[in-house]
Amino acid sequence: MTRRLAEMTTVEAAAAVVESPVVLLPAGAFEQHGPGLPLATDLVRAEAVSDRVAARLDGRAVVGPSLPVGVSPHHLAFAGTVSLSTATFAAVLGDYLDGLYRHGWRKVLVITGHGGNDATLGTVAQDLLVTRPELQFAWSPLTALASDVVAAAEPSEVTGHSGEAETAQMLALAPGLVHTDRLVPGTTRSSELDPLGALVRRRGGPRLTAGYDRLSGNGVLGDPRRADPEHGEAIVEAIVARITDFVAAWLKA
Amino acid sequence: MTRRLAEMTTVEAAAAVVESPVVLLPAGAFEQHGPGLPLATDLVRAEAVSDRVAARLDGRAVVGPSLPVGVSPHHLAFAGTVSLSTATFAAVLGDYLDGLYRHGWRKVLVITGHGGNDATLGTVAQDLLVTRPELQFAWSPLTALASDVVAAAEPSEVTGHSGEAETAQMLALAPGLVHTDRLVPGTTRSSELDPLGALVRRRGGPRLTAGYDRLSGNGVLGDPRRADPEHGEAIVEAIVARITDFVAAWLKA
Amino acid sequence: MTRRLAEMTTVEAAAAVVESPVVLLPAGAFEQHGPGLPLATDLVRAEAVSDRVAARLDGRAVVGPSLPVGVSPHHLAFAGTVSLSTATFAAVLGDYLDGLYRHGWRKVLVITGHGGNDATLGTVAQDLLVTRPELQFAWSPLTALASDVVAAAEPSEVTGHSGEAETAQMLALAPGLVHTDRLVPGTTRSSELDPLGALVRRRGGPRLTAGYDRLSGNGVLGDPRRADPEHGEAIVEAIVARITDFVAAWLKA
Amino acid sequence: MTRRLAEMTTVEAAAAVVESPVVLLPAGAFEQHGPGLPLATDLVRAEAVSDRVAARLDGRAVVGPSLPVGVSPHHLAFAGTVSLSTATFAAVLGDYLDGLYRHGWRKVLVITGHGGNDATLGTVAQDLLVTRPELQFAWSPLTALASDVVAAAEPSEVTGHSGEAETAQMLALAPGLVHTDRLVPGTTRSSELDPLGALVRRRGGPRLTAGYDRLSGNGVLGDPRRADPEHGEAIVEAIVARITDFVAAWLKA
Amino acid sequence: MTRRLAEMTTVEAAAAVVESPVVLLPAGAFEQHGPGLPLATDLVRAEAVSDRVAARLDGRAVVGPSLPVGVSPHHLAFAGTVSLSTATFAAVLGDYLDGLYRHGWRKVLVITGHGGNDATLGTVAQDLLVTRPELQFAWSPLTALASDVVAAAEPSEVTGHSGEAETAQMLALAPGLVHTDRLVPGTTRSSELDPLGALVRRRGGPRLTAGYDRLSGNGVLGDPRRADPEHGEAIVEAIVARITDFVAAWLKA
Amino acid sequence: MTRRLAEMTTVEAAAAVVESPVVLLPAGAFEQHGPGLPLATDLVRAEAVSDRVAARLDGRAVVGPSLPVGVSPHHLAFAGTVSLSTATFAAVLGDYLDGLYRHGWRKVLVITGHGGNDATLGTVAQDLLVTRPELQFAWSPLTALASDVVAAAEPSEVTGHSGEAETAQMLALAPGLVHTDRLVPGTTRSSELDPLGALVRRRGGPRLTAGYDRLSGNGVLGDPRRADPEHGEAIVEAIVARITDFVAAWLKA
Repeated sequence: MTRRLAEMTTVEAAAAVVESPVVLLPAGAFEQHGPGLPLATDLVRAEAVSDRVAARLDGRAVVGPSLPVGVSPHHLAFAGTVSLSTATFAAVLGDYLDGLYRHGWRKVLVITGHGGNDATLGTVAQDLLVTRPELQFAWSPLTALASDVVAAAEPSEVTGHSGEAETAQMLALAPGLVHTDRLVPGTTRSSELDPLGALVRRRGGPRLTAGYDRLSGNGVLGDPRRADPEHGEAIVEAIVARITDFVAAWLKA
Repeated sequence: MTRRLAEMTTVEAAAAVVESPVVLLPAGAFEQHGPGLPLATDLVRAEAVSDRVAARLDGRAVVGPSLPVGVSPHHLAFAGTVSLSTATFAAVLGDYLDGLYRHGWRKVLVITGHGGNDATLGTVAQDLLVTRPELQFAWSPLTALASDVVAAAEPSEVTGHSGEAETAQMLALAPGLVHTDRLVPGTTRSSELDPLGALVRRRGGPRLTAGYDRLSGNGVLGDPRRADPEHGEAIVEAIVARITDFVAAWLKA
Repeated sequence: MTRRLAEMTTVEAAAAVVESPVVLLPAGAFEQHGPGLPLATDLVRAEAVSDRVAARLDGRAVVGPSLPVGVSPHHLAFAGTVSLSTATFAAVLGDYLDGLYRHGWRKVLVITGHGGNDATLGTVAQDLLVTRPELQFAWSPLTALASDVVAAAEPSEVTGHSGEAETAQMLALAPGLVHTDRLVPGTTRSSELDPLGALVRRRGGPRLTAGYDRLSGNGVLGDPRRADPEHGEAIVEAIVARITDFVAAWLKA
Repeated sequence: MTRRLAEMTTVEAAAAVVESPVVLLPAGAFEQHGPGLPLATDLVRAEAVSDRVAARLDGRAVVGPSLPVGVSPHHLAFAGTVSLSTATFAAVLGDYLDGLYRHGWRKVLVITGHGGNDATLGTVAQDLLVTRPELQFAWSPLTALASDVVAAAEPSEVTGHSGEAETAQMLALAPGLVHTDRLVPGTTRSSELDPLGALVRRRGGPRLTAGYDRLSGNGVLGDPRRADPEHGEAIVEAIVARITDFVAAWLKA
Repeated sequence: MTRRLAEMTTVEAAAAVVESPVVLLPAGAFEQHGPGLPLATDLVRAEAVSDRVAARLDGRAVVGPSLPVGVSPHHLAFAGTVSLSTATFAAVLGDYLDGLYRHGWRKVLVITGHGGNDATLGTVAQDLLVTRPELQFAWSPLTALASDVVAAAEPSEVTGHSGEAETAQMLALAPGLVHTDRLVPGTTRSSELDPLGALVRRRGGPRLTAGYDRLSGNGVLGDPRRADPEHGEAIVEAIVARITDFVAAWLKA
Repeated sequence: MTRRLAEMTTVEAAAAVVESPVVLLPAGAFEQHGPGLPLATDLVRAEAVSDRVAARLDGRAVVGPSLPVGVSPHHLAFAGTVSLSTATFAAVLGDYLDGLYRHGWRKVLVITGHGGNDATLGTVAQDLLVTRPELQFAWSPLTALASDVVAAAEPSEVTGHSGEAETAQMLALAPGLVHTDRLVPGTTRSSELDPLGALVRRRGGPRLTAGYDRLSGNGVLGDPRRADPEHGEAIVEAIVARITDFVAAWLKA
């Protein structure tokens, strides 16, 4: 039986409102992921994790409509990237929530494969406290939930976008979309960054944003050649377990 | 080789800007389609047609990011329907176009499986004449392009949403998502409509809108039991041929 | 007795809410109509038709405030054209509807002399299903309602804006505003269109929009010299009859 | 020869850009004016004054599209009143200015028959300093320009909306729209006002707004029975003279 | 005891809702005031007047959050000026009012040190009649309330921004922020204005706006060297008395 | 010499554009801080830190206009809280940046005393990459920069808003605004939280937002009685040092 609303009929959806009090919304991005990964990388991962979490929850959650394009202005210098402004992303999500709310759902969790969506998700959550006080709205990143598993594999000093951990997840979830022969390292050491790029990556102080073309010539941070499907599976499983655990507690709250 | 930008890397996308001057954007809806068809029916059809058109054009067109949720306020009374306001739909499409334009594309065609998106697509086209005069923007419905093929099968007097022609297309394109055992007729005769419903369906005079719950108890117009996969394939092929023909002429314009 | 709200006092308007359940809103455009017709052509026609329909309905409908400027981006290359963005047009209409609704009206029909307003009227109708479910909102074009009458006069192969039928209506309704000595043909045959213009006019496939300067050097489609006041009167009467018929049925729905 | 753009052809409009550097935009309101005056009172006066000013300037100014509905929230308790929000009014005017600017005009004067439009006109003027620094934008009330002429007739202690001066102007400009037999006094003395109403009318301190239903039972301030067409003509002439004088100076600046 | 909400705890604020039915909101500007006065001049004056009015009202009014930046597009040519668009200023004020309303306040008075905020305050007041009919919203300028006191000191023929009266107030309220050694006259006579500038300053006809760089080379209108702290104190006291008087009457209305 | 733009004249501001390439914008909140701290707590701290950082940078940075009200929907249940929507906060900041940019500044750092502003600051930073690519925009929290110093004092298991660290900073910076006699503990142990509250505070999984009234009866998290001015000074100094260090590096980047 499907856990995806998209594949349900309206009759099945009516039953799901009662039986599945949580809706998971996968959010992705349509952005460059270096020469080896597809533009849809973040959506692929978000949908796969959402499907697994829903399956794990045994009918208590369904997967709602995806947000296939996210907030990616920092990748627009690279061909193919399509980005929503933060206002548009918030409007889309707001309209999704209006529909789900109208049908009776009161707990919605956005699972985002793209960190660039985090800030907007935070603003949506805040505004909902005033506009929809009855709705419980949660959101979750992916890789950040498994930072311990990621770190265990000792990635490059500089890593992240399209790097070891992200490529590993794709090798586990959608190997057919990974061009393993074209995986090349991007920026892997702090010393390769110019002063502004170094400030962007610096932790423990003010935050600064810049286009990824300033951080990496090919759009990659880390060395995707070192990615491994088994490690990817371990990362995904850690993420799935932690989100499932949260939702299970939420269902009782 | 994929024609879908989503599956391309940024390097492949850079090549596509040069080789594939037309981007096809599939637009769907997330709305009730009666007890037998899934909520994603319109997206499924739009993506399938887009893929076929792109294949037929032999590399001169690529399929860009989908708009999985459309403008469906008239279906909100039925469970599972999620709808964008017309302003949100226009904003999403506007942001897609901004990104594609930035990378160099100047011809974009939205292929919409949902007639409820037509009005907004029309407004977007008008506003673009002022805000993006260099962009050529086109949009196309699906079933309306093959009205002769649809009529040849002599559908019910009242037919349309989730009726003979739409179900037939789904049987041709995604039979696994059709619950053939649950297909039941909706409103099939004008005499079943109340006076307001009759005005909504009336042609040749002013237009009036109403929720589909006013037109049909189960959300269906027509008799989907009479749908046939071969007829569905004929409809789809007519649509694909006519869109392909248009794009071929456009590429020379 | 006037049927125009604009000419009524507030005391008369209070009575009209009870006696005249339908409000007609004339919508025009402020756009080029070639060298022989005035910029206000579409408003003149919309107001005249609205007045006649109201008169025909014998007190059951009143004419509300006009929308004198419409959505005309495709005519902006021609001097004098003033256009509202689709969002502004929708906002104006929305505010009109708010006021009328507040006073008790629940049926409003926009009669638009300008086809460029159609798409926005469609989006307004859709959004109202969510924001004003109690309001019944209808809208109507003019000339399109009488396409049979228009065709009977065998106009040019290419005809439309400022052409035979529109000029004829003006000769019937406001001859003093027509410069018959300056009426000149515009584009009258498909062969005069460049490939892009041909795609814009093509029917039965995707739709494409372009500025009218691309379609006609003088802004005219068709040959207005062939226009005739009696034919114009016949067109107007067909339109008035069909709208009146619709409203009469609506009043009983 | 007409001075109204609405009645010109596009060819005449192109000439007007060169010969008539100033565009006058009449702004009205669609609001209650008591039991004796029509809802369109403010538009009637604004258009009449605009026409006279244009005529007086001998071809150096033209009258552009009207704004028939203004900002009238304070009159919404009275039947028939239709009001734009301040944002919508600003958007409409902004779109008008965009069109006029595109054709080459750089001096636009809004002549408003309704004081409720003043604040929004002020905000539009401010925002234009940033968004359209090349455009010179002016705006003018009507009656306030002739306060000396009004005072000379010794109107009621409390007077204003639909009172002596406004009714007099209508008697001069559009006597057919005035129901002289229904003219009745409204609030004419301060002592008739409740404490909040008194604060609204108080001058020389903070400003406070309230609905006109709070100030007058029939929507009238003053005694329209005392209005006189000759005095109305004197008021109108003073207004026309002062606006004409301003524009003449402006044309040289 | 403080009258400023900002310095209160939430427990004190809860008591203030009951005991202090009026909230005073000081609005300033962040704009050039010539070579002798600080950018915050208008806020300094608005806050000082607000504090005095609150003190004078003996606990019946509190001072709420300030609006430190106002609508100052006409000063943007001068370094340091920061301006809100009219829409942003209205949004900020609207959000302030929402919060105060939620806690129970129904009377709010904005005290603005900057005349450039007046138009937007007027639009906010109008829109509130529809969106918040229960809220009584008032607003007040400063110097304009004491025009008789200002005139008594016989300032320059042209005076106003950063001139005699404004500088005098600052000498009374915040002498430490006035660079008396750098006070220099700006435009002081009509004859120094160019024709456009003369139209901007002209009274009794249409209004026209222009940047202050068009009116004065150093941003000053009048001769601030002639300013005197005692006169400033008299101006401030007249303002405070008149606002206090208004609020006292309002509390009884 | 002042480092605050607000206290500068326009002449001084013009010099500052050249000499002080960084502008610091203090952002606060107007929200409950329990029974012992004032509503303006976050602004007080942000301005104090901004002043110290500017002083430490020896003329290379100036302090611009404050944002006195932040995004605080989660505190609206507590009297006195005033909150901006995320869109309004972004609009205000956007207008500040427009003004500063116009004068020539290219590096702006928002120093926010309120964590509720973080998400919106993140969205502003993203949108600026598209709308103002030449502007370098950074933002910084306060207490989070000194988490090591905070932890060294071993605060309560549950701590944060109005707790040990925040109260300590206020004792160091503005002791006159702290009611030490009214400081009382709020929620200090996880076991005091209900299941939903526990999920809100949970780390390492999805994020969930709720009103603070759900987390603490008096709005306090932690035990402010344990706050100490010397510790507060240490926290502030750590923050100032780290921000200063960042800006120093930025000036060279």
